[in-house]
Amino acid sequence: MDAIATGLPFDDVRRLVAMMPGADLDAVAAVRERDRELTKPAGALGRLEEIARWLAAWQGNARPAVTRPLVCVFAANHGVVKQGVSPYPQSVTRQMLENFAAGGAAINQICAAYDLGFKVFDLALDLPTGDISEEPAMDEKACVATMAFGMEAIAGGTDLLCLGEMGIGNTTIAAAIYAALYGGPVAQWVGRGTGLDDAGLARKVAVVEKALATHAGHLSDPLEVLRRLGGREVAAIAGAILAARLQRIPVILDGYVVTAAAAILQALDPTALDHCLAGHCSAEGAHGEALRRLGKAPLLDLGMRLGEGTGAALAAGIVKAAAACHNDMATFAQAHVDQAEAAPTTAG
Amino acid sequence: MDAIATGLPFDDVRRLVAMMPGADLDAVAAVRERDRELTKPAGALGRLEEIARWLAAWQGNARPAVTRPLVCVFAANHGVVKQGVSPYPQSVTRQMLENFAAGGAAINQICAAYDLGFKVFDLALDLPTGDISEEPAMDEKACVATMAFGMEAIAGGTDLLCLGEMGIGNTTIAAAIYAALYGGPVAQWVGRGTGLDDAGLARKVAVVEKALATHAGHLSDPLEVLRRLGGREVAAIAGAILAARLQRIPVILDGYVVTAAAAILQALDPTALDHCLAGHCSAEGAHGEALRRLGKAPLLDLGMRLGEGTGAALAAGIVKAAAACHNDMATFAQAHVDQAEAAPTTAG
Repeated sequence: MDAIATGLPFDDVRRLVAMMPGADLDAVAAVRERDRELTKPAGALGRLEEIARWLAAWQGNARPAVTRPLVCVFAANHGVVKQGVSPYPQSVTRQMLENFAAGGAAINQICAAYDLGFKVFDLALDLPTGDISEEPAMDEKACVATMAFGMEAIAGGTDLLCLGEMGIGNTTIAAAIYAALYGGPVAQWVGRGTGLDDAGLARKVAVVEKALATHAGHLSDPLEVLRRLGGREVAAIAGAILAARLQRIPVILDGYVVTAAAAILQALDPTALDHCLAGHCSAEGAHGEALRRLGKAPLLDLGMRLGEGTGAALAAGIVKAAAACHNDMATFAQAHVDQAEAAPTTAG
Repeated sequence: MDAIATGLPFDDVRRLVAMMPGADLDAVAAVRERDRELTKPAGALGRLEEIARWLAAWQGNARPAVTRPLVCVFAANHGVVKQGVSPYPQSVTRQMLENFAAGGAAINQICAAYDLGFKVFDLALDLPTGDISEEPAMDEKACVATMAFGMEAIAGGTDLLCLGEMGIGNTTIAAAIYAALYGGPVAQWVGRGTGLDDAGLARKVAVVEKALATHAGHLSDPLEVLRRLGGREVAAIAGAILAARLQRIPVILDGYVVTAAAAILQALDPTALDHCLAGHCSAEGAHGEALRRLGKAPLLDLGMRLGEGTGAALAAGIVKAAAACHNDMATFAQAHVDQAEAAPTTAG
């Protein structure tokens, strides 16, 4: 990460993207071979079997483990909040961080239920980014420094990284990013966030339209989209996703805001999210459509739209169970269970 | 349950069905009231909030708890297996029970991951039921005795009952039950089970068609459908669902075979499954269509078709997290978090 601190920051990000390792196909083959021996019909655990292969591919481990799962929540404040895009005041971002620290938020309970580690990153909450409807959110140096800070998510070690966020106003930020990357009518990307009424929703659409107009002509580079329309938590999450890839750590993405950070990386390199699983489909705005653009089938679809990493953490519970099944089930030989008399069909 | 041991067995089952308690609406109202105070936007936990209300409704408890969740797996053998409806030999049913006891099956790993209790019920494995394509599976006395045995699932106490099954041949049994209850072409209800090839699938359809023809004219009473086309695990699961309702214990249903047992009860009384959550949508046969008939939206859809209660147990992990969120989150007042400046919209 020293490379980031010097020279042309965005070029250094691109250099890291170019260094991303690919999947470990030998590990995937080993998982497939063991899976055939486990005491169940071929394919009967469905996506749990896919998850075991995905963990192996990105951990580079034929016996993938989830022993140190970690939820990282990145929190930031946004200048655009002054445009009235959220029913909650900006003060809530810091209050919720205090709630995380005291163990009172939803994400705390889910981490406790599934024994997930939990870290919160305060991204200069007292310095909201620029109001994207009028100016860039950040300069290039701040954007890359924040990405580098996000890379610290994995510094303490983990074998499964779940990414979440907290930031009043950040569904406006995410909507602007999607609209810039994917085009189409702005309204299709904008949702009610924490609970806007119809008038608030119309205002939010107008603010995002204004932001796109303000930055028109500067949005063909995904990193410019990030710096102009993004937020600190979005930049940090993009950094965390990239660092995890470089260190061979599988990632579970949360909802609408986290996948906006992911979309920046995918726009830089279409393979950049191959180590990422979509934890859930959020009820916010066009998250389903965003996931389709990312080519990700979400693991869960529970009508949630809280953020905080709650969807990713719930999905981590499933991923832990998938790893336990693959690692700890008996084989047909070990359990003295007869195999199928005819080869099972793959369609079965 | 003494009532079952005497007199007209099916009439006694009907008497128990008539005794089913309704939802505790006061407890639901209390959950709604507390939910509004928790540190999150209204509705932002989606189905997790619904789950808290469902637990309260059926536990009759304004602060619903999941402290003793239990997975019960019922195992049985089926005379119809001699018609070649499964690629696995009947010996596998007992071998898998031994695998459960040794901790080597998928369900063992999921129970360990989520700290769920686990019990297996051996339903006279050495006495397969009658071949439904030629004769009734059971007589009335055996059917009701097996339902009563299934009621023992809750004897040790639990506050969340997950129901699963094991039985080579039992997707044939379930298909016959759905076809008898819901009609339509038999083939639409028949799937590949543990992995039939095309020829096996055609044979399975023909066997179910023959079973319906054999019992034609006797299938208007759901309990006759259960005794003629069912299996011991199906009868026991129906008993367990009914006992759980009478004792105010919420139930999570597993896949294709478990919901066939549930369908018998719903045909007796359309409210009989109000205390039941569909844990997942199985990849087997027409489980999605069966769930639509039952009016149940599955919590998970992971392409699984293993049985053993695996889908219900994975869903129990989500239900535990939902209960933890409702019970242990801080309120806005406790956490000193500001509330929304405008009333959030319900659509938000």
